[in-house]
Amino acid sequence: MPTIEFQPSGARIDVAPGTELVDAARAAGVAIDIPCGGNGTCGKCLVRIVSGDLNQKKRAEGDDPRLALACQCAIGNDDVVVETFEHHLPAGDRDEDIAEYASAIATVLRSGRHAPIVQRTALTVPPPRPDDGHSDFDRLKAEIIKQTGKKSVIVPLAVIRALPELLRADDGMVIITWHDIETRAIVIRVEPAAFAAGSYGIAVDVGTTTVAVALVDLATNAIVAVRSGYNDQIPCGLDVISRINYARRPVRLEDLRGRVVGTINRLLEEIRSKRRVDADAIVAGSLAGNTVMTHLLLGIVPEHLRLEPYTPALLAAPNLSARDAGIAINPDARLFLSPAVGSYVGGDITAGVLMTPLTGDAEGVSLFLDVGTNGELVIGGRDFLIACACSAGPAFEGGGIDCGMRAADGAIDRVRIADDDLPEFTTIGGASPRGICGSGIIDLIAGLFSKGIIDSSGKFDRSGTNPRIRIDGRRAEYVIESASSSATGADIAISELDIDNVMRAKAAIYSACALMLKQVGMSFTDLERFYIAGGFGRYLNIENAITIGLLPDLPVDRFAYLGNASLIGSTLALVSKDERERISRSARRMTYVNLSTELDYMDQYTAALFLPHTDRERFPNVYARLNAKKR
Amino acid sequence: MPTIEFQPSGARIDVAPGTELVDAARAAGVAIDIPCGGNGTCGKCLVRIVSGDLNQKKRAEGDDPRLALACQCAIGNDDVVVETFEHHLPAGDRDEDIAEYASAIATVLRSGRHAPIVQRTALTVPPPRPDDGHSDFDRLKAEIIKQTGKKSVIVPLAVIRALPELLRADDGMVIITWHDIETRAIVIRVEPAAFAAGSYGIAVDVGTTTVAVALVDLATNAIVAVRSGYNDQIPCGLDVISRINYARRPVRLEDLRGRVVGTINRLLEEIRSKRRVDADAIVAGSLAGNTVMTHLLLGIVPEHLRLEPYTPALLAAPNLSARDAGIAINPDARLFLSPAVGSYVGGDITAGVLMTPLTGDAEGVSLFLDVGTNGELVIGGRDFLIACACSAGPAFEGGGIDCGMRAADGAIDRVRIADDDLPEFTTIGGASPRGICGSGIIDLIAGLFSKGIIDSSGKFDRSGTNPRIRIDGRRAEYVIESASSSATGADIAISELDIDNVMRAKAAIYSACALMLKQVGMSFTDLERFYIAGGFGRYLNIENAITIGLLPDLPVDRFAYLGNASLIGSTLALVSKDERERISRSARRMTYVNLSTELDYMDQYTAALFLPHTDRERFPNVYARLNAKKR
Repeated sequence: MPTIEFQPSGARIDVAPGTELVDAARAAGVAIDIPCGGNGTCGKCLVRIVSGDLNQKKRAEGDDPRLALACQCAIGNDDVVVETFEHHLPAGDRDEDIAEYASAIATVLRSGRHAPIVQRTALTVPPPRPDDGHSDFDRLKAEIIKQTGKKSVIVPLAVIRALPELLRADDGMVIITWHDIETRAIVIRVEPAAFAAGSYGIAVDVGTTTVAVALVDLATNAIVAVRSGYNDQIPCGLDVISRINYARRPVRLEDLRGRVVGTINRLLEEIRSKRRVDADAIVAGSLAGNTVMTHLLLGIVPEHLRLEPYTPALLAAPNLSARDAGIAINPDARLFLSPAVGSYVGGDITAGVLMTPLTGDAEGVSLFLDVGTNGELVIGGRDFLIACACSAGPAFEGGGIDCGMRAADGAIDRVRIADDDLPEFTTIGGASPRGICGSGIIDLIAGLFSKGIIDSSGKFDRSGTNPRIRIDGRRAEYVIESASSSATGADIAISELDIDNVMRAKAAIYSACALMLKQVGMSFTDLERFYIAGGFGRYLNIENAITIGLLPDLPVDRFAYLGNASLIGSTLALVSKDERERISRSARRMTYVNLSTELDYMDQYTAALFLPHTDRERFPNVYARLNAKKR
Repeated sequence: MPTIEFQPSGARIDVAPGTELVDAARAAGVAIDIPCGGNGTCGKCLVRIVSGDLNQKKRAEGDDPRLALACQCAIGNDDVVVETFEHHLPAGDRDEDIAEYASAIATVLRSGRHAPIVQRTALTVPPPRPDDGHSDFDRLKAEIIKQTGKKSVIVPLAVIRALPELLRADDGMVIITWHDIETRAIVIRVEPAAFAAGSYGIAVDVGTTTVAVALVDLATNAIVAVRSGYNDQIPCGLDVISRINYARRPVRLEDLRGRVVGTINRLLEEIRSKRRVDADAIVAGSLAGNTVMTHLLLGIVPEHLRLEPYTPALLAAPNLSARDAGIAINPDARLFLSPAVGSYVGGDITAGVLMTPLTGDAEGVSLFLDVGTNGELVIGGRDFLIACACSAGPAFEGGGIDCGMRAADGAIDRVRIADDDLPEFTTIGGASPRGICGSGIIDLIAGLFSKGIIDSSGKFDRSGTNPRIRIDGRRAEYVIESASSSATGADIAISELDIDNVMRAKAAIYSACALMLKQVGMSFTDLERFYIAGGFGRYLNIENAITIGLLPDLPVDRFAYLGNASLIGSTLALVSKDERERISRSARRMTYVNLSTELDYMDQYTAALFLPHTDRERFPNVYARLNAKKR
């Protein structure tokens, strides 16, 4: 078998001819990121062939014959030495500020009686007697039936293993932690009363980019801590389609499964070790994620999510245990997975709408919009709920934008174009700018457009009067910060290409909203409220988003920002049977619309590819503001 | 931390002071057998301290201060070098002759309609349709409900993971393997119809000494193969009490669990690789073992089985999966564990009686006796069932007998004392003799007693006329084969001490039977039939067993040998719901009698410590034969 050596680490491995280079690297413990999922399109997996030869399906761009795209290479019969280049993903697990989040949870829970998911009951199991023919298990079971009134009892093997000691440690006095499910008491944990710890649960938001884990004290429903970090799947593809492509082979699907489960367990471990909570004391879990994420989390072949007719393998997962999923809490804890509605409207959305009147009894119709790597929206109220997804692309997360970055320290998050047509900005954390994040990009484009520095098709004024506009042949860009003042040592600028990408993204979202409303015979002005969820909304200037035509031209107070609605919904489903039932009910009520089969969509989209829109009448207030400025 | 080196292997390990030497050895991968379970009584764990010093709770016998009992040593603060001695356990996994066993199964199954444990049903799941909102799982579930008429369906995650491919491999045509349990269809496996394999089950007899695994084709209920081998727990203790002692610390309990599960998986793997059966195609399991073995197999703390009031943690294990137990078949296969009745009457007995009229509708009372490392017996019929256990000790398995061995190649299995008072014998496999097994020992003692070479108290005739009798002070022995002709190069002989051990063993069994009958106001002559189960019975000469007073003085045709009744019962419970229900019903009916609290037992036992018994009237036919010979 040929031997592959990876430089600079020197890791070596023998593999069968035909093995893909990326798989050989993984087996050798060498990280090669393939953000496009292995399609040979992003160029991020570039390696240099030091010696030997590889079979290349698709050659790398450029003149150097020794450069190759790792995702396009298979091992031949030769030994090969390959040099990999380091790619740094932004680090960033962090403790979240829980005040806002905890208060949202508390508000909902105060509003009514909420039956808990997990019960705790104290029992005294009588001591064994000679020759009565009852085992420890029999006596425990009889006492549980007596105290709970349930017909049958299920006790996990992990509890039975230690039962002789659990029943004798405190004279038969025990606390049982259990689920009350129909006629059954499903026991998760048995503790001697004298040594009983609390009981906890975790709520998880499994995002394509970011994963957030919250630890909740189930006695008080208080949030103990929330920690978030990047999804470790990112090196295998930035968006869900890339991840599906990556997962085509079983070993890679298992890799993705391990990465996202590993992310959750890592964040949880950070919380647990700080708060000194034993894994066995975490007796319930609730997870929300988009459909691709939940498929990958459970190790389910995701291929058909991207193939017609876009059929998920699974929408809801009953009877799922932490052991099944590999989540490092009490292995017998049951996991609730917020149900999905379709391939591209997942449990993050059904959990996300929980905080809005869309699921409730209030009159009127509202809209819920979650912009992440994908955009999902739900419209409805008491009488109907319709949902769809649109591919916004990663522009609002800084993707596809030359100087784009996520909302992290050093990101330009707010921009104003001053009267001298020069930019004023702030950065997250107040540091020298490293790049520009979604909210900054929107502010910037709105400012440039308002000032007439770009026109409604996003093209720069080429008259040459603005010193920040730099023209190079057909290329034009606007410099926000020069190389000498930036943290990167390079200009921070936005080009026409970047603006074009943002316009496509905002057109995708706006036109999806418009089309869905049209389908139910309504328009934006009929909306009671326009809810925005997801990290994207946190720093968003609503007026600027309206100016570029991302959001409809409604009064600013009609918009509301929900925070991480998926995590909030997931947390409510962790602690309350009623909220869990409300999620499932909304999922059942939600009609999934597949935009890609809607003939109108392309027309609506094309019409929205202007600032703010080709149809000026849709944005009367924007034009009123623009005219006021000009006057 | 002190470093411990083990010679001759050279394995080294650093451990904390206070660590027991046996645990250090295990951690270093060095095998030290402790057949007595770590009580310092058997002397088999002897090691030599080459350098350094150990804290010894109990010193080894003899004069050499460097010899120590490993099970009594803890590491101090010094580095230590220790030499271990090799102990060979008899190897011996072997394929069983299945003709007799298969015919016993077939006879029972022919006798009536037997509802199968596992169903196989062919379904055609309709293809996915755009926008109908149904996942693959939803469509599978709907079709199962339609075809089976069940109310709800449970599908394991392992099936869901591959569901998109399973449903598309053969146009939705699949074979499902499932359990029909009340209103639920519990799915174990889904296969595309075109690629469907058969479905198989395993039946296991988990003995203290020997484990037997049978692979059964569930389509035909045919026995594919049976393989048996020594329980890998043997190095941790020969009998159940030694194993309980060994298991006192969690790491050792886990060690024992791993060893017995490993034994089952090893035997199974040998069958599977030979018969080319995929582990996933094995969709059901049925296990029978004594109560200590099932506790250890499931990793349950066994300590209280040997402490008053002798309470098992568990008698029956509902809802047990192969995944839970670590058995290497389809992880979602359910395991049936034959229920135990008490700490010393286990599932091997409730399974064992299945083939006898004790569980049935026939009139009359019979007795079931299983002699293994422990002796268990059941008496009863249609109207009652009582069971007890007695500690026979290992004499009938060759234990505690100087030249004793198990029934393996080279064992003397049949002996006759000829008219010249010299022995004639056969060996298993016809090889030169290596030792003497249970049946040979019984033949030998019966022969010596019949010829007057030993008296009714088991003492040798010291007149000096028999050349085979060797007297050395208070010690006397009878040489069966001289060193020059044996396979071991040493004399094969039986001493008065050996005979005494056999007499204790036979007295324990006979007196238990007699006492149990007395408790129900019956005597041996009231028995319709006397069933003998277990490997011990295979080579047993009934008349000789009566002569020494092991079995009661009944006509020989009143006795019946059942073979491995536990494995047969376990197999029936694997394939038939009705047989499974019969086992559970017998277990519920069985009254467990604890002999150690019966005042009469010691009197009965003492009275039986003679050949054949102190009460001659109990053995009229034996004395008639003896007198006939003398005449």
